[in-house]
Amino acid sequence: MSVHTEDTIVALATAQGIAAIAVIRLSGEDSIRITQQCFRGKDLEAQASHTLHFGTMVDDGRTIDEVLVAVFRAPNSFTKENAVEISCHGSPFIVKEIIKTLLKHGARLAEPGEFTKRAFFHGRFDLAQAEAVADLIHAETDNARQAALNQMRGGFSKEIDHLREELIHFASLIELELDFGEEDVEFAQRDDLRKLILKIQTVLRALIDSFDQGNVIKNGVPTVIAGKPNAGKSTLLNTLLNEDKAIVSDIPGTTRDAIEDEIILGGINFRFIDTAGLRDTSDVIEAIGVERTKERMKKASLIIYLFDLANTTLEEIETQRKELITLGIPFISVGNKLDKAEPSLLSKLQDHDFTFISASDKTNVGVLKEKLLARVQVKEVKTGDVMVTNLRHYQNLLQTYDALARVLDGMSGGITGDFLAMDIRQALHYLGEITGTITTDDLLDNIFSKFCIGK
Amino acid sequence: MSVHTEDTIVALATAQGIAAIAVIRLSGEDSIRITQQCFRGKDLEAQASHTLHFGTMVDDGRTIDEVLVAVFRAPNSFTKENAVEISCHGSPFIVKEIIKTLLKHGARLAEPGEFTKRAFFHGRFDLAQAEAVADLIHAETDNARQAALNQMRGGFSKEIDHLREELIHFASLIELELDFGEEDVEFAQRDDLRKLILKIQTVLRALIDSFDQGNVIKNGVPTVIAGKPNAGKSTLLNTLLNEDKAIVSDIPGTTRDAIEDEIILGGINFRFIDTAGLRDTSDVIEAIGVERTKERMKKASLIIYLFDLANTTLEEIETQRKELITLGIPFISVGNKLDKAEPSLLSKLQDHDFTFISASDKTNVGVLKEKLLARVQVKEVKTGDVMVTNLRHYQNLLQTYDALARVLDGMSGGITGDFLAMDIRQALHYLGEITGTITTDDLLDNIFSKFCIGK
Repeated sequence: MSVHTEDTIVALATAQGIAAIAVIRLSGEDSIRITQQCFRGKDLEAQASHTLHFGTMVDDGRTIDEVLVAVFRAPNSFTKENAVEISCHGSPFIVKEIIKTLLKHGARLAEPGEFTKRAFFHGRFDLAQAEAVADLIHAETDNARQAALNQMRGGFSKEIDHLREELIHFASLIELELDFGEEDVEFAQRDDLRKLILKIQTVLRALIDSFDQGNVIKNGVPTVIAGKPNAGKSTLLNTLLNEDKAIVSDIPGTTRDAIEDEIILGGINFRFIDTAGLRDTSDVIEAIGVERTKERMKKASLIIYLFDLANTTLEEIETQRKELITLGIPFISVGNKLDKAEPSLLSKLQDHDFTFISASDKTNVGVLKEKLLARVQVKEVKTGDVMVTNLRHYQNLLQTYDALARVLDGMSGGITGDFLAMDIRQALHYLGEITGTITTDDLLDNIFSKFCIGK
Repeated sequence: MSVHTEDTIVALATAQGIAAIAVIRLSGEDSIRITQQCFRGKDLEAQASHTLHFGTMVDDGRTIDEVLVAVFRAPNSFTKENAVEISCHGSPFIVKEIIKTLLKHGARLAEPGEFTKRAFFHGRFDLAQAEAVADLIHAETDNARQAALNQMRGGFSKEIDHLREELIHFASLIELELDFGEEDVEFAQRDDLRKLILKIQTVLRALIDSFDQGNVIKNGVPTVIAGKPNAGKSTLLNTLLNEDKAIVSDIPGTTRDAIEDEIILGGINFRFIDTAGLRDTSDVIEAIGVERTKERMKKASLIIYLFDLANTTLEEIETQRKELITLGIPFISVGNKLDKAEPSLLSKLQDHDFTFISASDKTNVGVLKEKLLARVQVKEVKTGDVMVTNLRHYQNLLQTYDALARVLDGMSGGITGDFLAMDIRQALHYLGEITGTITTDDLLDNIFSKFCIGK
């Protein structure tokens, strides 16, 4: 595996654009020396770690900007290498000039995620923790932020490493048996191995099961609001969105561009997918449109199905609900236009687990929100909670679990040690990839190329 | 004048968006204490100025993020107040959560430019220097950056303050004369006053004259590429733009969104204004279009007028040039399609100060660039060069100059001390407003409201 950590890398670490300040980050053995060559004001190489120094960045005697330079000495930096952070005025032009000068003096441009990759190589954290850094930056809800932070600060890494070590112990005993060939010795007690595997599987199962929640927390819930034309879908969406917007826009300068079709309820991101009105039709062309809507509904995690209580009969409702059930996607039946509904219809629907609302005057919209949240069944993530949010980890956990199941099956079937050893080695491999004890260039490239430059 | 510097302000200081890190800035007496209330890891209040501390930001025991906190102690900070910079993960969500927590503990959101305003109030720099901070951030060329930096680091401020003090000396002597009423004494030697005013006017004139260059450096040169349809305007623009694009996009992550119609030549921003093809016409509707193009040409600082050498007679060229001259805007006559031109036409145009190019194969485009630069006559701005780039400063310098001219006129005409005093006071007022010795709320609001939040 090629590891290039001997050179000094540089990148803009803050977001692009005009702002009060921008921060340029360097890491590598020569980062302080290289910065010094472009800096006037103090001898940076003589300064203690974690100190800040005012001065000017210069290029061939030309002053580029007044800056504040933070000095970090190995191993007390994010990357565990010598590192520098230069706070300059937040002008893209100045940032470019300073980076150009640093390049001239021997730094090279960092690749995406290269700072975090170096932190991983130098043992600041394992691979699962490094991945959590990216998740933390992209977190859009409090739960997603907390889950990423917990993982970045340790999460399940220690537990996985501990289980892996125990398994390695057995694996080596079995390999030892193989060395003895035909002598039919058993260094690895089969009962103890069985117990260990069951213990590991219990831990794995809990982590695997946590992915249902973890995935919802990280990626949100794709939700379709469906129903016949004029059932009040847009009104409901606007009601939900507008309330949300009022909440998110309270601090100027920090809100993102409004995303029209996302709302955050109870720390969960519900991503609404637009569908055209669902209309019964014998027209061929229109039928294609209806099919397309149904395709979208099938891809959803949750459907809010709106019935127009003012213009729908009990029979129509029952027909539509039967069709919904055939889709196999969790859905919430919502009766809209409560204010205009026939009392007789309402009483007949009492047993049908209906939520009655009036989207236009916001009646019972709070109840609907509670139902949405109840359906995803996500609890608030607390400091220290452990869960799997990363698809790669989830897949590796599943593969480890299956390999261990094969070991158990093998032992029941009395297969020989060399086959057991093979499955155990597979389990060790999948487990090791999660925390990065085992890595390949492809795996690392795949992970770190998704990071921003500067991280 | 209302100055609110007793409370602690907070704002995001880096650009919005997802990035490796974001920096939140606090300033005010309580900024370290307030940060400490949301921070776990160290006692920030016990730390020296200009030191960095790793820890976590918390809200009611809930960990928001791992952060690096920089502590600055008054008067050794940008604002000369206690100040804190919090480097957190570059997630807009995390930034919002941290700012919310700081607000809960007693900080308030900063207004645009409020950090710089405080630096001004506390005497870090004068008003002209404070304005240069914003210019520095918005600089798009090396010359603009250098001019802003020079002004931020002192520029003409000291000289203006010095001249103002000398003038105040005379003003007070004249006011003293007025106290003596009818006694006809002259404390202020009129000859000395005249000499001083001439000296001041000499300095002012040099600054006033520098605005021609300063304005070009700060705001660029609005340039029209005009000519008959098919003269090759678009080809020329693309040739100029494409070469420029290749230069600006060499460092990833720092280039701004491409602005299609700006090129930087020799450190000067040429902003091209699009015009419809200029066609002689008797059609009323089309004539309106031509008028509109001419309006745009009149607003330009410079016109590149393209002639199609392959399809234009000498007579047509001379007619068009005559029309151009009547506009009164500097123009460069460019003969395009050099490769297809009649040699006889070329030889006849030799005396007409023509630039011959072929935009499509880039022949002589370099020569045209040199001509463009020669026309704006801007020299490279060096460290320490003093010039006026700010319209407000320019206007105040002009008003000061005129008030002083009235003083001179008054003395020649033998007017009384009270009238002289009035004009001197006016001159002092205009001069004092430049550096902010004299300010009003309106003036300050007007200046700082144009800053970013966080600066």
